[in-house]
Amino acid sequence: MNIGIVGLGLIGGSLGLDLRSRGYKVLGVSRREQTCTQAITRGVVDHASVNPAILATADIVFICTPLAAILQTVEQLIPHLSLETVLTDVGSVKLPIVEAIAPVWDNFVGGHPMAGTADSGIEAAVPNLFSLKPYVLTPIATTPTHAVKAVEEIVRHLGATLYHCRPYDHDRAVSLISHLPVMVSASLITTCMSDEPDVVKLAQQLASSGFRDTSRVGGGNPELGVMMAQYNKEELLRSLQHYHHNLEALINLIKQEDWTSLKQQLELNQLARPQFLQDASAMPKAP
Amino acid sequence: MNIGIVGLGLIGGSLGLDLRSRGYKVLGVSRREQTCTQAITRGVVDHASVNPAILATADIVFICTPLAAILQTVEQLIPHLSLETVLTDVGSVKLPIVEAIAPVWDNFVGGHPMAGTADSGIEAAVPNLFSLKPYVLTPIATTPTHAVKAVEEIVRHLGATLYHCRPYDHDRAVSLISHLPVMVSASLITTCMSDEPDVVKLAQQLASSGFRDTSRVGGGNPELGVMMAQYNKEELLRSLQHYHHNLEALINLIKQEDWTSLKQQLELNQLARPQFLQDASAMPKAP
Repeated sequence: MNIGIVGLGLIGGSLGLDLRSRGYKVLGVSRREQTCTQAITRGVVDHASVNPAILATADIVFICTPLAAILQTVEQLIPHLSLETVLTDVGSVKLPIVEAIAPVWDNFVGGHPMAGTADSGIEAAVPNLFSLKPYVLTPIATTPTHAVKAVEEIVRHLGATLYHCRPYDHDRAVSLISHLPVMVSASLITTCMSDEPDVVKLAQQLASSGFRDTSRVGGGNPELGVMMAQYNKEELLRSLQHYHHNLEALINLIKQEDWTSLKQQLELNQLARPQFLQDASAMPKAP
Repeated sequence: MNIGIVGLGLIGGSLGLDLRSRGYKVLGVSRREQTCTQAITRGVVDHASVNPAILATADIVFICTPLAAILQTVEQLIPHLSLETVLTDVGSVKLPIVEAIAPVWDNFVGGHPMAGTADSGIEAAVPNLFSLKPYVLTPIATTPTHAVKAVEEIVRHLGATLYHCRPYDHDRAVSLISHLPVMVSASLITTCMSDEPDVVKLAQQLASSGFRDTSRVGGGNPELGVMMAQYNKEELLRSLQHYHHNLEALINLIKQEDWTSLKQQLELNQLARPQFLQDASAMPKAP
């Protein structure tokens, strides 16, 4: 089976490494000649080209470009694909992507692997990036069953844990556990860097693992943060409004010195957090 | 030299391990017999007792109890100490501690090692916990120089990086990089756990490293969180108000779809974060 990968960065590159090691033939497409050369050298793909015509024989094509480039990429691919080719993407927002692509390509299955590292680019590609990580597929009523099954088979071969949900439900859930943390963490950095210079200087010297972990996603790729906000604006704003409300309630508990209620809330949080951190390998799988 | 340690948990226990390995004689005090026995078995102390009279020969005593117990502990110790004994504490808030102890014990030096792990109790004690971590001393005008020098010598033997500042400045800086992250992170968990049940369930399945890191300190020890708020209330509220303001500004950028300004802010954050994460070993040391 021939697998196409368009966009050879961290996700596309890691996908290529895994799929080749499972015996698939991998055809890569990148905008840049240099990336194509690197992809071949690193063993990420069998063949690579800046010309999407290379995908004429692909059975499944993974679109692994940044969110903002997905629609344009699909439009450029369509003239070169066989009508049977199954398309899937790895974008972190699903409703606008599915709504735009489903009408122009029948065999499209929205997808989102919940995997990544702090790095980006083909240099950052690693084997087994998806192993035991959640991988969400968001088929809709009109998605052909055979297309869903084809992508499912690949996801299982990656060792990922498969979930299905509606594009809208996906976007609500990731607004909470993926996009909201970025904005919450970003505001923390903004606050720490914009205090009085003497306080900031001492804070820089004393910052330790608490700051390091809480600020990690807020200090990440700015383009990725903007794209989350652009493409998942309504759900992110909804999550941010809830967060804003909860933060105000917590501030009021401290102002009122209501230590009993503050402790109760922190105890509830301590109990709730592990529910979000169960190993994907131990979770019930999608049917 | 004899070193006393009162409170044999993660910090007190780790301190004992390091100091014994550097050739000091370590005398431990705990409220519980069982902890004294464990401390001796684990090699954390040379001698241990529930009776503070064991500290009569101590040259320096580290108070390693929770914040709320420090003052009472000092009052109970005083009748048993030689007047030359230097007292120091490891509490994460300094102004109220220094203001209360300095008037009753001349040779007191406030201290705060910026080190810890997710665990607590003497079972969690580990060697080299303080190595290359910041360790702040907060002497005031009336603190005898010889007392400061005595604590400094120990801190250097721990391999920690020594800083000096006023108690008030310490509390402002840690409100930003230690106490604010706890509250910011706690509100994230509260928001994720209190959405609609279907969304929460899917969010639990899909949560990955972004949620894991951003929620870590907010899902930690509730008593520690409450104590930060109690003892550093004014500075924490000041930091929370700045955070609240910055979060509202970020929400407004998203509402107004001002992606240019959002990107600029995220770029500033990305540049600012590493300034807070410089390896303590590479920082200029206190004179």
